[in-house]
Amino acid sequence: MTDLSRPIIPRGFRFGAIKAGVKASGRPDFSLIVADSPASAAAAFTSNRVIAAPLILDKQHLTATKGKVRVVAINAGNANCAAGQAGLDAANATCAAAARIFACRPDEVFPSSTGVIGVPLPAHKLIDAMPTLAASLGAESDRFLEVAHAILTTDTVEKTAFARIEVAGPDGAPQEIRIAALGKGSGMIHPQLVPHATMLIYILTDAAVEPAVLATYLLPAIEVSFNRISVDGDTSTNDTVLLLASGASGASIGPGNAAFAAALAQVCSSLAHQVVADGEGITHVVELHIEGAASAADALRVAKAIAHSPLVKTAWAGNDPNWGRLAAAIGYSGAQVDPDRIDISFGEHLICRNGGRAVEFDEATAHAYISQREFSISIQLHQGEGRCVFWTTDLTHEYIHINADYST
Amino acid sequence: MTDLSRPIIPRGFRFGAIKAGVKASGRPDFSLIVADSPASAAAAFTSNRVIAAPLILDKQHLTATKGKVRVVAINAGNANCAAGQAGLDAANATCAAAARIFACRPDEVFPSSTGVIGVPLPAHKLIDAMPTLAASLGAESDRFLEVAHAILTTDTVEKTAFARIEVAGPDGAPQEIRIAALGKGSGMIHPQLVPHATMLIYILTDAAVEPAVLATYLLPAIEVSFNRISVDGDTSTNDTVLLLASGASGASIGPGNAAFAAALAQVCSSLAHQVVADGEGITHVVELHIEGAASAADALRVAKAIAHSPLVKTAWAGNDPNWGRLAAAIGYSGAQVDPDRIDISFGEHLICRNGGRAVEFDEATAHAYISQREFSISIQLHQGEGRCVFWTTDLTHEYIHINADYST
Repeated sequence: MTDLSRPIIPRGFRFGAIKAGVKASGRPDFSLIVADSPASAAAAFTSNRVIAAPLILDKQHLTATKGKVRVVAINAGNANCAAGQAGLDAANATCAAAARIFACRPDEVFPSSTGVIGVPLPAHKLIDAMPTLAASLGAESDRFLEVAHAILTTDTVEKTAFARIEVAGPDGAPQEIRIAALGKGSGMIHPQLVPHATMLIYILTDAAVEPAVLATYLLPAIEVSFNRISVDGDTSTNDTVLLLASGASGASIGPGNAAFAAALAQVCSSLAHQVVADGEGITHVVELHIEGAASAADALRVAKAIAHSPLVKTAWAGNDPNWGRLAAAIGYSGAQVDPDRIDISFGEHLICRNGGRAVEFDEATAHAYISQREFSISIQLHQGEGRCVFWTTDLTHEYIHINADYST
Repeated sequence: MTDLSRPIIPRGFRFGAIKAGVKASGRPDFSLIVADSPASAAAAFTSNRVIAAPLILDKQHLTATKGKVRVVAINAGNANCAAGQAGLDAANATCAAAARIFACRPDEVFPSSTGVIGVPLPAHKLIDAMPTLAASLGAESDRFLEVAHAILTTDTVEKTAFARIEVAGPDGAPQEIRIAALGKGSGMIHPQLVPHATMLIYILTDAAVEPAVLATYLLPAIEVSFNRISVDGDTSTNDTVLLLASGASGASIGPGNAAFAAALAQVCSSLAHQVVADGEGITHVVELHIEGAASAADALRVAKAIAHSPLVKTAWAGNDPNWGRLAAAIGYSGAQVDPDRIDISFGEHLICRNGGRAVEFDEATAHAYISQREFSISIQLHQGEGRCVFWTTDLTHEYIHINADYST
């Protein structure tokens, strides 16, 4: 497996983006990812029960096609959520237009939207722009990066990740499989809008993988990446992760291929980290290591209680080694804990031993350590073997500024 | 039942406060509430599994005495939490000193602490100050108000509530029962400290009530008051509500007295509202009415999801009628919802009908309505009969300032 800093694009896909006029800023806001032939697809969506119109269609389409996608149509600037029948009509009209242009079934189109919520999507803008966009598609890395740029809303940087593995073909000769991913989430670009931060992730590979097999790779990779991050604890109505396999490499991947699973997990972890690192207004990225929990679920409860605690997150924003707030969050997490057996370390520095201040605690050292942009905190509960790693952020004035100071 | 704006103090108690030197500011920080004879007691404590040393003793003492309290000893400036055996020793020493002075059992003393966490409590300061404080106690309302002042930490105002009811005595003649409550929680007074906001509530009555009966009144009153408020979602390690009945009125209250229950609920609701209204850095108090939930538990899930959503709370801070964030929080609350049957009103103004923007939604009107310091939001889920009322606040720059900008 090779981690590639420069983009190497999986074969079998074409890309493009255009200014359709949905974003008030006039920036590129409409993108297409088109597979040369229907690609195997696996997807995961938000657990929010209020979900956007495109996600409703996406689920129906994947069921109808048994997991095949020809066209991914992504607009930024409007989430097409909480817009009732008008929202479904807009998403359907977009799919119908794409189906006409690319000579595919409407349910082979996978629509995605991100942006402001509660305002009907002006689908005619996407439909009007689609012929020009379709004529401009290309397979080059520059076109891929255009999509990575056009799907951003409040993000400050594009988010991409790449991997390449070799597998042995039927004749024993090596076959190259490429993976490329792009995503968006959690930043500030349009301060005059009130953003509804949404995470959209698209992962492409040119491996040949059956849809049902593809899902067995995607879900474990999500579990240790995108399901292990939190900026503000607000679960979006639009979150989507889509994995497409074109088969254009000629290399087949069956169940249980460790190299493919590892490459996919690496790409997902990279993108998840990029999303957190571009969180709204953040000044710190914190890697939590929860260990010794009674169960893996308990470890996750502790991580999420810490990651969602305003008092913990504001302490981090102030570079304040206030471990008492961590102890309190551990205590109300719902996990099984013995308050007298909790150990807390900031990096290598033991801060709290057996629930009380460690004798070696040095405030200046602790302060210096958590003044870094990225740092880690380890919690040892001494209750069992449950553990997890979780990435989160601080809570800053800038987050309030982004989300409070600009009225719709 | 009479709601009294001026304090009328239940008979059978004496009060006092002193500067013991625990608060770095030099303000009064040590208080005593002393019953003339052991009072019936009912109490509720934080559900946090990490709890402060005084709460550990309080639970043991109430069990040992079968619900009797002679002395309440409250210090502010130090939470005596996460201090290990030293914390327990400090609380025990305080109880022993009070028992000597007031000639009672150590387990008839109820210690309370609030303030910074993780620093051993300097009990000797309390013990040194106790004789002078004990000699100065009085039953007057001014002395009661001294306690209300001395227990504050980051609060900006004292919090008290009073009620008076009449019941018919054995001979049919009216008997007066008084209730007085004082509490603290969630404000800013000591910006140079890193506060760990804690709610401490003491409710006194001169009714004669058995401890077991007293608990049947306290828990329902808490359920609709203190368990229905949230400023930042962080559950403290020290939260305590204590109800003491001296019996000095001569009026007995058995189980099921509706007037006593109503008076107690009124006092608790008033104090709960005062705690929220003095929340750290807040500019809005929001009353949530959740209706039509599948169950009361579901209604509470929706209220808490909204009350803990940074995106919702920052929108309020910006006077922003962004109802999409409310819809998203409802969706991820875990409650049973049909996204197409959610109605949302700001006061009398319908904002969202059937999950989409109501035709009568007027942004200027909605903006003006939620620009008020106090406003209400009603959510109708159309799933059943579950309902609740919940009070919460916005999330402001000042909250970040209080909790991030002053390092320990």
